[in-house]
Amino acid sequence: MSDIRNLRGVVPYLPTPLTAGGEVDEAALKRLCDHLIKEGVHGLTPLGSTGEFAYLDFAAKERVVAATVDAAAGRVPVIAGVAATTIRDAKMQAKRWAALGADGILAVMEAYFPVPDQGVIDYFTAVADATDLPVTLYTNPNFQRSDLTLDAIEALSHHPNILFVKDASTNTGRLLSMLNRCEGRIGVFAASSHITTAVMLIGGRGWLAGPSCLIPRQSVRLFELCEAGEWDAAMELQRALWAVNQVFAKFNLAGAVKAGLRLQGFECGEPAPPQPALGPEQVAAVKAVLERVGAL
Amino acid sequence: MSDIRNLRGVVPYLPTPLTAGGEVDEAALKRLCDHLIKEGVHGLTPLGSTGEFAYLDFAAKERVVAATVDAAAGRVPVIAGVAATTIRDAKMQAKRWAALGADGILAVMEAYFPVPDQGVIDYFTAVADATDLPVTLYTNPNFQRSDLTLDAIEALSHHPNILFVKDASTNTGRLLSMLNRCEGRIGVFAASSHITTAVMLIGGRGWLAGPSCLIPRQSVRLFELCEAGEWDAAMELQRALWAVNQVFAKFNLAGAVKAGLRLQGFECGEPAPPQPALGPEQVAAVKAVLERVGAL
Amino acid sequence: MSDIRNLRGVVPYLPTPLTAGGEVDEAALKRLCDHLIKEGVHGLTPLGSTGEFAYLDFAAKERVVAATVDAAAGRVPVIAGVAATTIRDAKMQAKRWAALGADGILAVMEAYFPVPDQGVIDYFTAVADATDLPVTLYTNPNFQRSDLTLDAIEALSHHPNILFVKDASTNTGRLLSMLNRCEGRIGVFAASSHITTAVMLIGGRGWLAGPSCLIPRQSVRLFELCEAGEWDAAMELQRALWAVNQVFAKFNLAGAVKAGLRLQGFECGEPAPPQPALGPEQVAAVKAVLERVGAL
Amino acid sequence: MSDIRNLRGVVPYLPTPLTAGGEVDEAALKRLCDHLIKEGVHGLTPLGSTGEFAYLDFAAKERVVAATVDAAAGRVPVIAGVAATTIRDAKMQAKRWAALGADGILAVMEAYFPVPDQGVIDYFTAVADATDLPVTLYTNPNFQRSDLTLDAIEALSHHPNILFVKDASTNTGRLLSMLNRCEGRIGVFAASSHITTAVMLIGGRGWLAGPSCLIPRQSVRLFELCEAGEWDAAMELQRALWAVNQVFAKFNLAGAVKAGLRLQGFECGEPAPPQPALGPEQVAAVKAVLERVGAL
Repeated sequence: MSDIRNLRGVVPYLPTPLTAGGEVDEAALKRLCDHLIKEGVHGLTPLGSTGEFAYLDFAAKERVVAATVDAAAGRVPVIAGVAATTIRDAKMQAKRWAALGADGILAVMEAYFPVPDQGVIDYFTAVADATDLPVTLYTNPNFQRSDLTLDAIEALSHHPNILFVKDASTNTGRLLSMLNRCEGRIGVFAASSHITTAVMLIGGRGWLAGPSCLIPRQSVRLFELCEAGEWDAAMELQRALWAVNQVFAKFNLAGAVKAGLRLQGFECGEPAPPQPALGPEQVAAVKAVLERVGAL
Repeated sequence: MSDIRNLRGVVPYLPTPLTAGGEVDEAALKRLCDHLIKEGVHGLTPLGSTGEFAYLDFAAKERVVAATVDAAAGRVPVIAGVAATTIRDAKMQAKRWAALGADGILAVMEAYFPVPDQGVIDYFTAVADATDLPVTLYTNPNFQRSDLTLDAIEALSHHPNILFVKDASTNTGRLLSMLNRCEGRIGVFAASSHITTAVMLIGGRGWLAGPSCLIPRQSVRLFELCEAGEWDAAMELQRALWAVNQVFAKFNLAGAVKAGLRLQGFECGEPAPPQPALGPEQVAAVKAVLERVGAL
Repeated sequence: MSDIRNLRGVVPYLPTPLTAGGEVDEAALKRLCDHLIKEGVHGLTPLGSTGEFAYLDFAAKERVVAATVDAAAGRVPVIAGVAATTIRDAKMQAKRWAALGADGILAVMEAYFPVPDQGVIDYFTAVADATDLPVTLYTNPNFQRSDLTLDAIEALSHHPNILFVKDASTNTGRLLSMLNRCEGRIGVFAASSHITTAVMLIGGRGWLAGPSCLIPRQSVRLFELCEAGEWDAAMELQRALWAVNQVFAKFNLAGAVKAGLRLQGFECGEPAPPQPALGPEQVAAVKAVLERVGAL
Repeated sequence: MSDIRNLRGVVPYLPTPLTAGGEVDEAALKRLCDHLIKEGVHGLTPLGSTGEFAYLDFAAKERVVAATVDAAAGRVPVIAGVAATTIRDAKMQAKRWAALGADGILAVMEAYFPVPDQGVIDYFTAVADATDLPVTLYTNPNFQRSDLTLDAIEALSHHPNILFVKDASTNTGRLLSMLNRCEGRIGVFAASSHITTAVMLIGGRGWLAGPSCLIPRQSVRLFELCEAGEWDAAMELQRALWAVNQVFAKFNLAGAVKAGLRLQGFECGEPAPPQPALGPEQVAAVKAVLERVGAL
């Protein structure tokens, strides 16, 4: 495994397989991780939004991280999600994921009451200080109650452990603003809400995204075309893969990923209730796009 | 203590006193509860938004509920907050609070991904089914990611354990819509974002609110004037108390309640970081309104 | 007609009757005005939102104001809507409405790009300076792109011609904040989005609202009960009338008022396309609520 | 001038120069148009958002279109903005702009009350039916009260006169969705809120944008690099030009364009009040970015 500080590529956001009783299905998770690594992905991210971090307690999260680290077996880096409302809880998670063998941290800040910029900076700084692991900031102005402003990202980019940012907005220009302002101090990864080829063009390093679980080979191929500067070929593939992203944007993200994986033979259960499972028409839409891109 | 099913009056949303190390300060909480009961409040609500439910783990929440039940000692009902993203977690909390001696449940649904009406109904039904305790629905269209629609509230109002709703929007008409649609099946409580006198006029039962911790006697007096139909006197008092609510709406709610209680001699610490403590100017504004209404 | 500076009561927001060709139907407008005055309303407001001010050119607006002034014939004050994006256009409208005999101005500020507080204050000050007519500020934080903040309202309340404010938010507490901050310098009117009885209780003067066109007698009765302090009787009537407001909030406001008036024998055409006319089910819903309150 | 149906390239959104008295300054507008054409732009768009369409009456708009057509003198196409709340007004504008010699229509739908998809489709269809000119749809989900959904755009893409769409959101993926769904029936132009190089990569035709007035030569150079597939060189230039876009996004758009043009020797006055003129610090920021890209 190369130094995670040089990370580039496709890093799937893993779902958290759940049994009917609501327990983490570690065997299913390990089987999926092994499959994705064999398809060529460059890293794994447990406990992102697709991984239902907001629906799991600490013990379940521990099992998810341990199983992913075990399955990765050093072949690709594991970037484990830390998400909390308090600095205290976030530090506790970060230290525990490091002890379990994670190679990096994806840091998410949850909030009930809005928090000013300084509080946001304090939170991410505390996560970065908690361990020696490289930290990826998660930002999504449309979804997080107290999100990272460009000013906060610039301030945090000077921290030696804060190396990357993953932007899950739909605003691709925001990524170029980050690159312009942080002058090489922070690497930018896209989410499935961006056209990843466009993000690669402007200087991105790859993407952390749920749909990549279902189209790992195609995603790696797209990444390689971008790296080679074969933009026309990349866009031809991108146009087809964009239809996959669009379907996932319409449905419950965890539900759509789990429905698609079931069609591919990876049973991961359903999203934690009261999140809805996909209905028959929605499953058919997932099936149709996967067939169209050769993923079924 | 009279039957909670007939509950009317002022039910303070309790803050959660925290030590500098982030632990629940049960002694401080008990002292505050005792004070509020002696001032005449009609119930106590631990683990509402003011109580920082979103910033506490399960063990801390248990200590909060146990301490409140212990302090109340049967003098007034304790309506404990259940807030979760999953049905599984919500049921677990409800059963535990019942076992600890809570008299009722304030049910809040948290969400990361949006949930359709049926999922929202499933969640609150599961909480209501989990114990025999009466349930108060919490609704706030401006704040909750998947809130209770009027249709969902009407559907839930038929459940024998769902007796009350607390609306924390600023839309007072929404409460009259609930009363019109639920035909006596559900009792309505206001939040501090409503003019409580207006809510009493339209048929409300009282209010569950954080600022009542700081002005318990004045709040009870206002409630009694409303109950007596002395609307002119009520409005005179209301106009003064509204300035208190306005100050709290401008600041971090938990921080403002804790700052005000410190001024009154009830040390409750600060909000859990990275939530900010109030700055000197903000404390001065809290002090000024409390002095103006005779609460300092 | 008593001094408009003492205005209290029910002031319907008039629809603008349109022919199939899109011309103002002055005869229909005059007939409606006469009917409403005979039912006891305390004023008339042409060119409010219900009057489709945003869909009429200057010449059409002139005809609306002239027809309303003519129909009122001094029996009740006519408060004509001024709505513009520029100070230049707003002043021009205000001067023209004054010349046509309007008794007051309802001032609305439209915007495409957001405008800071000082620009908002400049706009309303310019309207108030343009004539000697008393001005009612229109505020709606949920709808106007650059709305009046409480700070701006307080600043404007010192202008000798700015006498009233009409708040079309759903936030009833905001009205009490205005009353508290402006210390008697500004009179507050409600919109149909507020429970008008509650607004009267807290010190309001009445309401400017579209639905009052359909239930003028009932609205005047409700106002009189409030003025008499007969709050229980007022709330009984209010509960029934609230159902009318709720129906109008669901549909295109101009369309709903026009559909209801047609059922009452006042043909006013349809809203200007591409605004939709109400469909049969929507008309049935309007019919049902009007029947329930004795307005059909 | 080549067939507008093959239009590709940089089409500046023209400001509307205004005298201190608020009149259109046609001489200034013509001088600017001539300058831009000499710098190599591929078309001109009067009466877009930068052109303050929302702040001008019909007579002023007529003068703007006539002056632009006159200045263009057939050298580049003039795509004139039609913006209205009613179909009646929109058709009137479209016919008049055609009579004045415009080569195309930029169609914007304004609304006060929300309009359902069918009404939106009716509006744009009516504009497209009103003349033989090619129509560019304007869409901005963050700004227009009733915007074009992807379904509506797909439906409208079958109209023979609807050839282009300009998307002013920040969501670059939305443009790829349009291209995927409309299968070559509609050409896509970016706004200044997108990274134009990214839009060119995914299949865009160019951009309609206000900042291009200030950096016409640089914008044309960027377009040419994209057309040549020289993506690395394009991105190097893009990174510098993006700083210009960011400055304009922070300020009042018309004010920023007018301030920048004044620095370049093109006096266009100030935005129509109550829109604010830029303050000294804002002008300094505009000056700094223009200097950095060699535009001063």
